[in-house]
Amino acid sequence: MLHSATAADAADAAAAAQQPLVIFDTTLRDGEQSPGVTLTVSEKLEIARQLSRLGVDVCEAGFPVASEGDFEAVQRIAAEVGPLTDGRRTGRPMVICALARAVESDIRRAYDAILPAPLRRIHTFLATSDIHLQYKLKISREQCIERAVAAVRFARSLGCTDIEFSPEDAGRSDRAFLVQVLSAVVEAGATTLNIPDTVGYNTPEEYGDMIRFLVDNVKADRPIVFSTHCHNDLGLATANTLAGIRNGARQVEVTVNGIGERAGNTSMEEVVMAIHTHPTVFPVFHNIDTYQIYHASQLVTRKTGMMIQPNKAIVGANAFAHESGIHQDGVLKHKATYEIIQPEILGMPSKALVLGKHSGRNAFRTRIDEIIRDTIYQAYIAREPTAYETLFVAFKKLADSKKRGVTDQDLFALLDDHLNIHSSGRETFRFHSLQVVSGTGILATATVSIINTVVPPPADPSEAAAADAEPSTPTENIITDAAIGHGPVHAIFNAINRLTGVKNVLASYDVTGVTDGSDALGKVIVRIRPSDGSGDHAPRFETDESSDSATDVDETVQGQGTDEDILVASAKAYINAVNRMINSERRIISGKGAGKALAPVSSRKVDV
Amino acid sequence: MLHSATAADAADAAAAAQQPLVIFDTTLRDGEQSPGVTLTVSEKLEIARQLSRLGVDVCEAGFPVASEGDFEAVQRIAAEVGPLTDGRRTGRPMVICALARAVESDIRRAYDAILPAPLRRIHTFLATSDIHLQYKLKISREQCIERAVAAVRFARSLGCTDIEFSPEDAGRSDRAFLVQVLSAVVEAGATTLNIPDTVGYNTPEEYGDMIRFLVDNVKADRPIVFSTHCHNDLGLATANTLAGIRNGARQVEVTVNGIGERAGNTSMEEVVMAIHTHPTVFPVFHNIDTYQIYHASQLVTRKTGMMIQPNKAIVGANAFAHESGIHQDGVLKHKATYEIIQPEILGMPSKALVLGKHSGRNAFRTRIDEIIRDTIYQAYIAREPTAYETLFVAFKKLADSKKRGVTDQDLFALLDDHLNIHSSGRETFRFHSLQVVSGTGILATATVSIINTVVPPPADPSEAAAADAEPSTPTENIITDAAIGHGPVHAIFNAINRLTGVKNVLASYDVTGVTDGSDALGKVIVRIRPSDGSGDHAPRFETDESSDSATDVDETVQGQGTDEDILVASAKAYINAVNRMINSERRIISGKGAGKALAPVSSRKVDV
Repeated sequence: MLHSATAADAADAAAAAQQPLVIFDTTLRDGEQSPGVTLTVSEKLEIARQLSRLGVDVCEAGFPVASEGDFEAVQRIAAEVGPLTDGRRTGRPMVICALARAVESDIRRAYDAILPAPLRRIHTFLATSDIHLQYKLKISREQCIERAVAAVRFARSLGCTDIEFSPEDAGRSDRAFLVQVLSAVVEAGATTLNIPDTVGYNTPEEYGDMIRFLVDNVKADRPIVFSTHCHNDLGLATANTLAGIRNGARQVEVTVNGIGERAGNTSMEEVVMAIHTHPTVFPVFHNIDTYQIYHASQLVTRKTGMMIQPNKAIVGANAFAHESGIHQDGVLKHKATYEIIQPEILGMPSKALVLGKHSGRNAFRTRIDEIIRDTIYQAYIAREPTAYETLFVAFKKLADSKKRGVTDQDLFALLDDHLNIHSSGRETFRFHSLQVVSGTGILATATVSIINTVVPPPADPSEAAAADAEPSTPTENIITDAAIGHGPVHAIFNAINRLTGVKNVLASYDVTGVTDGSDALGKVIVRIRPSDGSGDHAPRFETDESSDSATDVDETVQGQGTDEDILVASAKAYINAVNRMINSERRIISGKGAGKALAPVSSRKVDV
Repeated sequence: MLHSATAADAADAAAAAQQPLVIFDTTLRDGEQSPGVTLTVSEKLEIARQLSRLGVDVCEAGFPVASEGDFEAVQRIAAEVGPLTDGRRTGRPMVICALARAVESDIRRAYDAILPAPLRRIHTFLATSDIHLQYKLKISREQCIERAVAAVRFARSLGCTDIEFSPEDAGRSDRAFLVQVLSAVVEAGATTLNIPDTVGYNTPEEYGDMIRFLVDNVKADRPIVFSTHCHNDLGLATANTLAGIRNGARQVEVTVNGIGERAGNTSMEEVVMAIHTHPTVFPVFHNIDTYQIYHASQLVTRKTGMMIQPNKAIVGANAFAHESGIHQDGVLKHKATYEIIQPEILGMPSKALVLGKHSGRNAFRTRIDEIIRDTIYQAYIAREPTAYETLFVAFKKLADSKKRGVTDQDLFALLDDHLNIHSSGRETFRFHSLQVVSGTGILATATVSIINTVVPPPADPSEAAAADAEPSTPTENIITDAAIGHGPVHAIFNAINRLTGVKNVLASYDVTGVTDGSDALGKVIVRIRPSDGSGDHAPRFETDESSDSATDVDETVQGQGTDEDILVASAKAYINAVNRMINSERRIISGKGAGKALAPVSSRKVDV
């Protein structure tokens, strides 16, 4: 246990003698399987950019055969993020990886999607446990080997030289058979073997022992990378992953904040910081830039709506309460007596006041430039020259109403709110204004005005002429209606439903103060799903006979809004969610219309 | 990995041949050190009752010397919960434990506090690492041993036969010296040796190795219980605890939901369910009733305001998304292919509709009786005959406004809201009514009426006569005022500040929908801390020279409110927090007034 600075030095010194650990991030594939999480293509791109900046080696960008939207996301990440080397220690870009079942059509589709990337990987999988072979796949062990080998050979035949194979349900597979399958796929050309703890119930000893057994017994005529893939059902994902590393694994599959189905996947930040603080314990080094961890964590929280609990390791709000709260003096006096990871190492912005209400454009611009340096915000701001002015207006509004001045955290909240709207896809509806009357003994009543950006102005010539007269303020498209509700938020949502005509069911509603104090900015996250009268979850794809008959396409979308007034933030969040739902429905329709002759995917949820 | 039912059977069968594992819960001591968490005495009692029901073996109830409030809480838990055996498999009550520094005054105070309990333990601690001895305690190794031995002897001399000793910062202590200290305290009468991973940075191998070394080397002429105490800074607390068990520890120190400072303590539910699902891996059995886990988790969340992230292992909302969400069909079809812990085993209430708006008093009462059976709610309801009627009124209001009927989750939310007010201590102010006007371009304005339950009606004889005429409706004590704010919530809080005159700073504000749908109940949790103009954290105690000069008494209090209207819920939560602050200040004053000649405690935060 060395002090952080010393640990970093030691890590650098030891790195030359140690082996590289491949950080394989599956936030965009397995992480996106979290219930209620649905990311738009532009959100996935934004996360992928942050992952590249963070130093991730391999980015599993999606499961292209699952839908047109998934394909498009992987393809655009391959094209737009695949070549990036900005801020990457290695100087090399990320490998862009796509998932595929062990069938030709899946693999071809996956390869088409990643083709634009300079570095590409196909990740194919097949169950190997008898229980899966017998009940789910209905094939023999021999057929299993044949199918796995054929899949890897087909991937190679396309020209792909980086091929990962995962035996699904490895934990309950017969070990001798597992060795047979894995040796066969290595011979066929697989370069990485990923061993999923599918059900998330392994102990570190069991999991480490399995990795060791496979490393020792799988036959290979060249170096093969063994990979861990753990789930956190018992709170052991990080420990299992570290046990894998100790027993020979040289790739770890992780997600930012540990998001994923059920209790989630292994947390990237926990594994990275465990290695960081124990440079002599783990015989590996990685190329993650720890200064990007905080921003990556925050970005994934915002985009997925998956909250982090205050006592979450590394990235929870309390993880560094020593530093930011009332214990600061004590900690500073005893830096040697209590070992902690300093928040600066993770890139946390300061809570110090940096700007006040008298700060002008120059001071504002200078501060924004300072805080976005070396973050992915930089590129966004650079692309959008009007951003400073838009942000400055929002800043002045905030600074006027805050008594205490504005912190870097406030500025990041403004940046996020601004970028969130832009990354949600087409903004069909835009918040305009709101009036609410509510209370006890009063029927809560909301009057909401929104701008419909798509519907053209009425054809009435006189109105059209008026529109021509003021092209920059399309007042004709402002629509207003009122509604009542059980409370003000319900009334607001009812009014927006009337205005937009989008039928949906509210799945969740959360508000948090993003900054301290009663004059804080409030952030609202809502999740809605389509309501069509026929039940909550209409299947998006037909099912095929070889797999689960249950559809588990999750059509929930989330929306976010930030404002000092939580009712305004609620309205913004709900409108944001409605826009995303419209965009998501548009994508599904275009996918169906495309009529590709692919093996249908009954489920985007894959247990690898 | 056996199926849950089978696992339970196997566990029962194996239990006879296995060794008992002592579950030592420190939710009320180390858990309460979480930033922003301050529990009232009645809240601690309620949690202690739930821990007893859960089957916890040892309940660390607090640190009595820290304050009068801490002493009172431990004493009342000892008296009121100490004797309980309801629902406990062993038939024996919990051991009530109190923490004490290795000084006589602390130990005497701790023993006074636990005296009313049938089973009592003193837990004393002293740092053993050279860095702590040199810089913090300023004593030699010899003095360290003397002080530790004297403390344990003194505890025995009081008649206490169950004594736990913790070497603070054991992880960085010289191992040979650690063996010396621990052997000496065993000789002096210690019965349990607790080994804290103080800084939370051990790997499972390091921690397991230390436990094994101490088990093998500490000299004892009788059986000694070794105990784990781990923190989750790297996400490894559960794995470290399990490594401890594998290496000979027979007690685990845990908290419900893993709450605690920084990234928290080891999660009770993760350790218990790891053992539950691996009955053949861990050579121990415990007496936790897993059916109480859900209620214990929810209760601790509500009382502490520490949110659980959706992907938290075992108790997160998504941990069982398979069961409650859209994947149900697939899971039911393949129960054998995917192993999961069934939510019923943890006591999760159903989301099925159980009552509608036409349900009468009898149906309501029957359902309440059904759901509270074998829970701690039962005792509350039994003590308060009017509860059914109060709850029924709240139920009718809810049922009238909900389209979908009412679920068990809704009923628990009503029960919680009702019991929360009762467990907050004296209710100085009570919410009466609210009117809000807000929106964009409008100054948010709130008019709030509250009932002041303490101030007597005005002395004016005519008004007093009017009060006599209507004794049950003390309308004279309703006070009303209006205020503006940056948004409706800010306006409401400003109006309440005017009415109550309690100066404070808002530390956090969170809203969650407790049930699904836009007609859901919303729960607001606010945290406030006193503002006295002299800074955010005035010291509550004088500091002593041998320890940190920083005070870290956390005076933040939280309040909760539930309503369909989040503005009403916000007002209720804020008033609840103000009441708690008044009660907490009253307790501090009485503590100072008592003028006990005790060694002052500079910090309630202890790293063991």
